[in-house]
Amino acid sequence: MTPGGTAGGALGPVFFLSDYGLTDEFVGVVHAVLAAGAPTVPVVDLSHQVPPFDVSAGARTLARCAPHLGPGVVLAVVDPGVGSARRALILEAVGPGPRFWVGPDNGLLVAGAEGRGALVGAWALGPDAAGGATTFDGRDRFAPAAAALATGSHPAELGRPVDVEGVVRLAPPVVELTGGPGDRTLRAEVLWVDRFGNVQLAVGPDDLSGIDGDGIDGRATDWARASGVAVRVETTLRSAVPAPAGPTHRARRVRSFAELEPGQLGLLTDANGRLALVESAAPAARRLGVAAGSVVRLGPAGPGS
Amino acid sequence: MTPGGTAGGALGPVFFLSDYGLTDEFVGVVHAVLAAGAPTVPVVDLSHQVPPFDVSAGARTLARCAPHLGPGVVLAVVDPGVGSARRALILEAVGPGPRFWVGPDNGLLVAGAEGRGALVGAWALGPDAAGGATTFDGRDRFAPAAAALATGSHPAELGRPVDVEGVVRLAPPVVELTGGPGDRTLRAEVLWVDRFGNVQLAVGPDDLSGIDGDGIDGRATDWARASGVAVRVETTLRSAVPAPAGPTHRARRVRSFAELEPGQLGLLTDANGRLALVESAAPAARRLGVAAGSVVRLGPAGPGS
Amino acid sequence: MTPGGTAGGALGPVFFLSDYGLTDEFVGVVHAVLAAGAPTVPVVDLSHQVPPFDVSAGARTLARCAPHLGPGVVLAVVDPGVGSARRALILEAVGPGPRFWVGPDNGLLVAGAEGRGALVGAWALGPDAAGGATTFDGRDRFAPAAAALATGSHPAELGRPVDVEGVVRLAPPVVELTGGPGDRTLRAEVLWVDRFGNVQLAVGPDDLSGIDGDGIDGRATDWARASGVAVRVETTLRSAVPAPAGPTHRARRVRSFAELEPGQLGLLTDANGRLALVESAAPAARRLGVAAGSVVRLGPAGPGS
Repeated sequence: MTPGGTAGGALGPVFFLSDYGLTDEFVGVVHAVLAAGAPTVPVVDLSHQVPPFDVSAGARTLARCAPHLGPGVVLAVVDPGVGSARRALILEAVGPGPRFWVGPDNGLLVAGAEGRGALVGAWALGPDAAGGATTFDGRDRFAPAAAALATGSHPAELGRPVDVEGVVRLAPPVVELTGGPGDRTLRAEVLWVDRFGNVQLAVGPDDLSGIDGDGIDGRATDWARASGVAVRVETTLRSAVPAPAGPTHRARRVRSFAELEPGQLGLLTDANGRLALVESAAPAARRLGVAAGSVVRLGPAGPGS
Repeated sequence: MTPGGTAGGALGPVFFLSDYGLTDEFVGVVHAVLAAGAPTVPVVDLSHQVPPFDVSAGARTLARCAPHLGPGVVLAVVDPGVGSARRALILEAVGPGPRFWVGPDNGLLVAGAEGRGALVGAWALGPDAAGGATTFDGRDRFAPAAAALATGSHPAELGRPVDVEGVVRLAPPVVELTGGPGDRTLRAEVLWVDRFGNVQLAVGPDDLSGIDGDGIDGRATDWARASGVAVRVETTLRSAVPAPAGPTHRARRVRSFAELEPGQLGLLTDANGRLALVESAAPAARRLGVAAGSVVRLGPAGPGS
Repeated sequence: MTPGGTAGGALGPVFFLSDYGLTDEFVGVVHAVLAAGAPTVPVVDLSHQVPPFDVSAGARTLARCAPHLGPGVVLAVVDPGVGSARRALILEAVGPGPRFWVGPDNGLLVAGAEGRGALVGAWALGPDAAGGATTFDGRDRFAPAAAALATGSHPAELGRPVDVEGVVRLAPPVVELTGGPGDRTLRAEVLWVDRFGNVQLAVGPDDLSGIDGDGIDGRATDWARASGVAVRVETTLRSAVPAPAGPTHRARRVRSFAELEPGQLGLLTDANGRLALVESAAPAARRLGVAAGSVVRLGPAGPGS
């Protein structure tokens, strides 16, 4: 292995994400373990407030972070299966981002790692030195592995190689184009509601073209900008039976929050390249009554609606 | 530019404040951008829980921090106008504190920068490399600029000079001496309620002398220490019509929390040199029913009250 | 004094714990003071969300962290007596963990310091440079002392030696074996409820042997694994009169969360070596209705219960 050229001759920072929260000392203890094992390696905390046990939310957070991460090692722990037979993984990615991704084999890591490079290797960590079942693998297994990788160890020193194709992947979010010509709607899952109440959807601006067979951003029939987008909320979560149709909202297609008047709903391309339903300095999620996992339908708004 | 003498030949740490909260990955992604652009520069998080979009609260937090900041670069983002025509600023201050202050031109930066030095320059950042409207300038414009400054770039490499006198400033808080001789009261805005429920006012100990024309701290007619301070709460926020007079509380002028009995209200000079209404190990704000923006009236308490 | 061999020739990181919370800038300002006084020393935040003024919770958090801390300096501030005559301490410990522990003399530090080494010295800090009563000793007294220690100062340069035996210690938690042969129960205080709702008790696995005079972990009469543990909750806090007996729950003795079916209550040896009442991916504390300070009784569960 040839370490990267960053400070200290190491790979770069450890990027750390978890559902540990910030109330207890879990994050601090993992930092202490990293400081002991890799004292010159900085640690960048990505988020520790992933909802407890929510692997999907953690995976999406990592995927949103990935394009902005330079070389380094990712340490990610959202791990409802701790102590079970689920494997403890190291993934290796080739690209401009982090080379190693360490965490449980439950789907948490893959989207992030592939969002910034190509997966080229996977290893399963051996049991921790203490042996037996553990309850705090972040501290006892994952952090020591991340510290070792960040200071130049090779994954083969820490675990046994496993098939990259065999690592656990999460189901993709709901994205569905329904209806016929002239009556198409785009169903999209809510991926994330952020602190500001912005509602990120599982689709990007190009997906809108499917609704009317035409482009929407600066091209011919710019219907969405002209007459708006109709937004109907299916408040149910992914696995539940669809609820009766909720109210229909009308959103303006905008490029920034600043184009919106107070109280207006907007549809913009957000900082992750996804479509998001937003208001200016107000929480669109509250108005819409949605949370991560909700499904909304987008369609053309009639000129009179 | 001659970089300061701190570790790594850089200017010192990046001091980072925002309203991004700690639930999402916003803070972590900005850290990742800073780590990529300035890998040897430490980052000191001042606070990220400024209430969303509350520029005034952010500015006051920065001003409270300023006297304790050594050399470095401040990165501050509370930015309801992101994507609008508001300018993105670099301010330069001469003094013992941070040399550069980076953030939106909405009043967030000035009080802090002037609290620790003299403003000597201002630059407006150009649009980000990607061009067009953006929704996450903290990541895409401010953090890269802060990283560049922290590693030795000059503001002139990052933007065009603008008039220091033209940067946006916030209105000062309410401070008003009312009434005639023998009947003076001091109206003061609540600047901040902290985690412990302490109520910081927009006045300092010297302002009390205006009430009776005499000093209060260790000088002749030490009425406030002798008979206490009457505190009447106007619960309304700054811009609203004053509410009917609230109840009157009596506060003891004290030097530390430890002088107060349980349940007693005290008026002390707090760690920022402001007067604060406090209780010992209890939240005075709850008893008084105040929040930042409330206004209280202070006056002498009669000996029998 | 011979500094340790860690990066920068310093003692290792400053480990920082407080009840300052993460909403205000208290933690950030202390970091700024540390950055000014010890610019090359990393800071590891252990937790800042100790409940306000809860010295006991802070002490327990430090004690849980202690086994995982390498060389360095602990800075801990949970300090309801700030401004009173309580002393400001530096403790010195000999062992593999932090050498110096800085904070108020109210019981916060001792359990942690002794959990990782032997106490060999104590010093009382002098008043801060500004003199007089203070309200923010974390910023004005403790952080400067920690920064000085982390960069090579000796405690004798910062304060006067005091008797190690005279430092304040907290009362131990409730642990009591009651009843006679065949009817023994173990009363144990709840030390901590974590983010996931796990309920840590003040006893370890060896204490269970007192209930039936036999071992429980892999030895002869493995009753707890066979028939379960009866758990009765006394919901009252330590100092209160015991409430009428609460409902009795049955817990399975398990080695990991993964052995539990949804909805099952388990008793496992947690990551700190304590017994904890847990559920799999669910908050046991909510089901049991307990918080830190509650007392529970553990006893054998009859085969038919």
